[in-house]
Amino acid sequence: MVLGNLTWREVRDADRELVCVIPTGSIEQHGPHLPLLTDTLLATKVCELAEERRQNSCLLYPGIWLGCSSHHMAMPGTCTASAGTYIAVLTEVIESSLSHGFRKFLVINGHGGNTEPNGIALRELKAAYNEGFFAHAGYFSLLGDVAAGVLRGPLKSIRHACEAEASMMLHLFPDLVRVGLLRDDGLESDPPAPAGLTVIHHFDEVTEEGSWGYATHADKETGRRLIEAAVAGVVGAIDYLGNGYVFRKS
Amino acid sequence: MVLGNLTWREVRDADRELVCVIPTGSIEQHGPHLPLLTDTLLATKVCELAEERRQNSCLLYPGIWLGCSSHHMAMPGTCTASAGTYIAVLTEVIESSLSHGFRKFLVINGHGGNTEPNGIALRELKAAYNEGFFAHAGYFSLLGDVAAGVLRGPLKSIRHACEAEASMMLHLFPDLVRVGLLRDDGLESDPPAPAGLTVIHHFDEVTEEGSWGYATHADKETGRRLIEAAVAGVVGAIDYLGNGYVFRKS
Amino acid sequence: MVLGNLTWREVRDADRELVCVIPTGSIEQHGPHLPLLTDTLLATKVCELAEERRQNSCLLYPGIWLGCSSHHMAMPGTCTASAGTYIAVLTEVIESSLSHGFRKFLVINGHGGNTEPNGIALRELKAAYNEGFFAHAGYFSLLGDVAAGVLRGPLKSIRHACEAEASMMLHLFPDLVRVGLLRDDGLESDPPAPAGLTVIHHFDEVTEEGSWGYATHADKETGRRLIEAAVAGVVGAIDYLGNGYVFRKS
Amino acid sequence: MVLGNLTWREVRDADRELVCVIPTGSIEQHGPHLPLLTDTLLATKVCELAEERRQNSCLLYPGIWLGCSSHHMAMPGTCTASAGTYIAVLTEVIESSLSHGFRKFLVINGHGGNTEPNGIALRELKAAYNEGFFAHAGYFSLLGDVAAGVLRGPLKSIRHACEAEASMMLHLFPDLVRVGLLRDDGLESDPPAPAGLTVIHHFDEVTEEGSWGYATHADKETGRRLIEAAVAGVVGAIDYLGNGYVFRKS
Amino acid sequence: MVLGNLTWREVRDADRELVCVIPTGSIEQHGPHLPLLTDTLLATKVCELAEERRQNSCLLYPGIWLGCSSHHMAMPGTCTASAGTYIAVLTEVIESSLSHGFRKFLVINGHGGNTEPNGIALRELKAAYNEGFFAHAGYFSLLGDVAAGVLRGPLKSIRHACEAEASMMLHLFPDLVRVGLLRDDGLESDPPAPAGLTVIHHFDEVTEEGSWGYATHADKETGRRLIEAAVAGVVGAIDYLGNGYVFRKS
Amino acid sequence: MVLGNLTWREVRDADRELVCVIPTGSIEQHGPHLPLLTDTLLATKVCELAEERRQNSCLLYPGIWLGCSSHHMAMPGTCTASAGTYIAVLTEVIESSLSHGFRKFLVINGHGGNTEPNGIALRELKAAYNEGFFAHAGYFSLLGDVAAGVLRGPLKSIRHACEAEASMMLHLFPDLVRVGLLRDDGLESDPPAPAGLTVIHHFDEVTEEGSWGYATHADKETGRRLIEAAVAGVVGAIDYLGNGYVFRKS
Repeated sequence: MVLGNLTWREVRDADRELVCVIPTGSIEQHGPHLPLLTDTLLATKVCELAEERRQNSCLLYPGIWLGCSSHHMAMPGTCTASAGTYIAVLTEVIESSLSHGFRKFLVINGHGGNTEPNGIALRELKAAYNEGFFAHAGYFSLLGDVAAGVLRGPLKSIRHACEAEASMMLHLFPDLVRVGLLRDDGLESDPPAPAGLTVIHHFDEVTEEGSWGYATHADKETGRRLIEAAVAGVVGAIDYLGNGYVFRKS
Repeated sequence: MVLGNLTWREVRDADRELVCVIPTGSIEQHGPHLPLLTDTLLATKVCELAEERRQNSCLLYPGIWLGCSSHHMAMPGTCTASAGTYIAVLTEVIESSLSHGFRKFLVINGHGGNTEPNGIALRELKAAYNEGFFAHAGYFSLLGDVAAGVLRGPLKSIRHACEAEASMMLHLFPDLVRVGLLRDDGLESDPPAPAGLTVIHHFDEVTEEGSWGYATHADKETGRRLIEAAVAGVVGAIDYLGNGYVFRKS
Repeated sequence: MVLGNLTWREVRDADRELVCVIPTGSIEQHGPHLPLLTDTLLATKVCELAEERRQNSCLLYPGIWLGCSSHHMAMPGTCTASAGTYIAVLTEVIESSLSHGFRKFLVINGHGGNTEPNGIALRELKAAYNEGFFAHAGYFSLLGDVAAGVLRGPLKSIRHACEAEASMMLHLFPDLVRVGLLRDDGLESDPPAPAGLTVIHHFDEVTEEGSWGYATHADKETGRRLIEAAVAGVVGAIDYLGNGYVFRKS
Repeated sequence: MVLGNLTWREVRDADRELVCVIPTGSIEQHGPHLPLLTDTLLATKVCELAEERRQNSCLLYPGIWLGCSSHHMAMPGTCTASAGTYIAVLTEVIESSLSHGFRKFLVINGHGGNTEPNGIALRELKAAYNEGFFAHAGYFSLLGDVAAGVLRGPLKSIRHACEAEASMMLHLFPDLVRVGLLRDDGLESDPPAPAGLTVIHHFDEVTEEGSWGYATHADKETGRRLIEAAVAGVVGAIDYLGNGYVFRKS
Repeated sequence: MVLGNLTWREVRDADRELVCVIPTGSIEQHGPHLPLLTDTLLATKVCELAEERRQNSCLLYPGIWLGCSSHHMAMPGTCTASAGTYIAVLTEVIESSLSHGFRKFLVINGHGGNTEPNGIALRELKAAYNEGFFAHAGYFSLLGDVAAGVLRGPLKSIRHACEAEASMMLHLFPDLVRVGLLRDDGLESDPPAPAGLTVIHHFDEVTEEGSWGYATHADKETGRRLIEAAVAGVVGAIDYLGNGYVFRKS
Repeated sequence: MVLGNLTWREVRDADRELVCVIPTGSIEQHGPHLPLLTDTLLATKVCELAEERRQNSCLLYPGIWLGCSSHHMAMPGTCTASAGTYIAVLTEVIESSLSHGFRKFLVINGHGGNTEPNGIALRELKAAYNEGFFAHAGYFSLLGDVAAGVLRGPLKSIRHACEAEASMMLHLFPDLVRVGLLRDDGLESDPPAPAGLTVIHHFDEVTEEGSWGYATHADKETGRRLIEAAVAGVVGAIDYLGNGYVFRKS
């Protein structure tokens, strides 16, 4: 079920075991070839396709399009929330529905910069609402081995405005891809950091034009397979939270 | 131009005199007959139609769908932001674009509960960015005399899930209207307050089923005329900020 | 009853149906002819006069003199609170008295810049204390048709340091009016904005000397009549909240 | 000069060496014999009397009447700000005037609960505005040896609604003192704490009726002498900041 | 007992009458002769020595080493928290243990800049947890007459990186004292302020090299006696809270 | 160099290319066999050992011992900061040193719950101080293949109070390990979640006694090798930031 299309009476009568699915994205630069709303479009679309397969066990929320994108702010058009504001938005959406009796929440993220704030929001919600079930994942982290199998360029996972994202956009929103401008970028950008060390960098420091990956290898069919895998992943997560999630101690 | 569809290079090259148009809505109960996302759908659609007429002089942002809806929270499915969080979201969207050189911002609101926070956000932005131009309006406040002219029920303005909103939804999103459940409500709800006094009430105190107005009078053609007037109003506001807005002292 | 003059035992023994009346003002420029504290003086005095007529049904709080005045900050002497701080003050005053069992609150405002924050504070209080009764009004919005009837200049309502405010100050605080400096200002300041559009401006952008209206028409007797109407309006609001306020659904 | 009575032009033309004097008080229980506004009345009156003697070297602000009074909240009528809100109010008042070029600020406090927040506000202001001069004192801490000399009861300093406060109220606001209810209280309330240890207690834990001291010894003439000493102390502080305050390193 | 060394089962089984002792310090300049961590080292060590004497009646927390040190920031190496952050840390530590049933808290401070925030934190905790017992003291305020008795220089109390602090460091951490750089400083720094007036100053305004006092008089044996007195003072405070603290009204 | 042991003059004269190393830990339950301060002890000790090898290229801060531990709060003795407070502490420590000219910061974490807030703090610092270099890592993520090589139990990485943590504590702080209580726990706690999905759980939901892993396999020599690898990892990170870190674009 799609929350925004329902009336309040329909929500009132809905099963409280429904998994509330909240897509999170961004509006931020995606290189010369992809539109600013790419992350929001992909995360939301993946969730919509998953909802079509699990209409009776999930409640789909609109996509949150303002993400944590400070690392892209050097490139115009990007909008960013502070981490505090972003966390507050996600928290207040979920608290609203907790107050109506829902208790299973699945955040599906389309933008790497949101991963940490999503985690923090859900951890603090769990501390406040111990009876709730909270889980999150990047749709891109639910692909299993598919990405490695279908990507043709040297980079075998999703980065930013890369082969994978460009392929999925070609599959779902072909009119929004500037095909003539597809570009490989950011490929040797960083001196290799020691394994396990996270270095904070801005995209204007490590790329030339904002993308990171081999977008010139993008392909519609690759995109179709990635989306199919992502949708399957979200469906699996819905099923896990909806049906199978039970605490068991050793 | 539609911000989300652009690439960062296109924004970089865009005219800084463009009027940034930001729709604000809500996800909240709209009686038994209209969907939760009504305010967001209407405000966003009005802005999209205005953008089509002023592609070269405005930059349309995605609609902010989480509004200040605490007065509707008694009815399930409503989500609400605190005023502080709502203000922070709008502020950070605008600050992002101010940092890229844009300076004309027009917030078009679809939900009464956002009017005060929109005003506060823009006033504090003006205090911080004196060189900016900030304006806001409910699309419903830009109708001029049209509402009074076309509405057929006894209430001659827009209230909530009323004849006007139901008519516009019938015109734009007919599949989302529960026609069989259209209902008049809230009509004698409040003891008449002294003129000029604002009494804070929740919708469950003053309505039976959440709507307020004569939705049974709703009509597709009424909706068409209201939308046309609203779009004309937004176009007028874009023109005012874009071309005509000059400070003149007496 | 005047809260500040009471002892705690007297408050302990007071009726919890009393309407708590809280005046809100500002300390901000009022042109060359009126003192900085004008809004606070007028709102507080109106409430004091109302309290004299309803001693047994209201509890009068001291006036809050720090308002939201960022739009006047270009002119020295103005002090401004951020919206967040202003809202917190009003909220914490009311929460204090809610904790002692009072539940009817009437905020009487003397400064336009406080209207939105007053609304937000009361809405969030209502969300947190559903059993409370919260209402607010500018004293200037309770005048009914009196302003239009008595004002002699071309502007028939209250603006800022205008004929109306100057008249009321002449009536109540004549020593604080710089009669020789009374000035008309801000009269053609703005290019006319489209009806329904709120444009955020600072007073130094739209006036020459900070006032807005035809203060040269100010007159003591006009002030007397306006004050009388304002007091009657506040008395009416007290009576409404104190005696007559009952929720009725259709 | 009294800020609230001035016009903005007069402030614009005022000397930036003026010492801005800000009284801080409270609205809180003061036993059965003194009114809730006692601290605000006394601090403000002391400052007004000081201003009369130093009209050309100080700028007197209205008294801040909402203090940090959580320790009195058990007794109705008390209002309290959180420390954060209280600090924000004082900070924003001072920041407003810093922005207009004033740089010497003297906070005169009438309520013990404000002492720590006053200190914190001024310390954080000093960190942000290194060129400013910030000082604060309870008017009661400026009495020198006078209190010990004039008080007749066993307690030789100011506590709360005690002989000293009751005496000063008898001198300045005799109509607000419930003479028949003057009461000694709180006298053996606490097991003696080790010297130097600050124990946080609420007044309902350590008094019977909210006052702390020997108010039955209160006397108008005692009050006159205390006020005279306090006024002299504030005048001395104004002179110190206004004329004599120079940083000298060893 | 030392909290950090315990396991959770041991805490689970511990007496809830234990006094939780929390040392607070700073990392800030201490002149040319003492290390940045001086305040933290001294406050923590005093508490450790007290804990050794009252193992069965107190629970010692790790020292909080980030203090409110904005007045020392001109000298490199100093780190400062804002008052709000500092208060939040202390508050959340105590709230954590309140949630586990502990209710007696004693904060032992080693840095003057923390005194006010410690007071505010505990006052707000008391307002929220009325059943809790909260007390605080600078270890330096628990010395009774010992400081005056043992200090040999002209200053008979503790100031900053002074004879007293240098002596205690010589006693406890001799390797960290730069004996050759011991220095008298800040001795005539301030024009004498009126008694009772607190003037906010930064240490670079009133000292040459950051210390304030007669450190050249420092002596190991003086340090030993001061520490002994401080430990006795903390032990006395633990006993007071642990055994003797009962509310009694007059 | 160890910051806390330095004087301000020594910091003033230090090279601004020094890498500021900040250990972050927690005080939280670690099963029946390890003390509450385990994470802080290990992270700090690893950094101290690394500092000994790179005295001239790093500046070691005291360990932050209050972590984000809400998921352990069901077990007494745990203290937790909210994410906002934790982030503020780390941010203000780093901002202090940025103001003194340092610009390379390396946060070494000992507690999984701090990973996300560490990331957010550094990302927001990077957004505010674009010229800064910010990196973070769990010391446990710098082990390379060593953990898999030396651990003897079935779990080949670090979890919580597990074989690895118990081994390192046996090596470094043997007196703090309750050897007789070493326990395997949490081993089949969770129904296996889909790969890539992060489920938020509290430790009392998924363990019996708070530890997670095969602590019964703990061994001093294993601990020695893990610590050696961790120290080497931190040294490598210091070298990377200190000498080798240069932005290069493709």
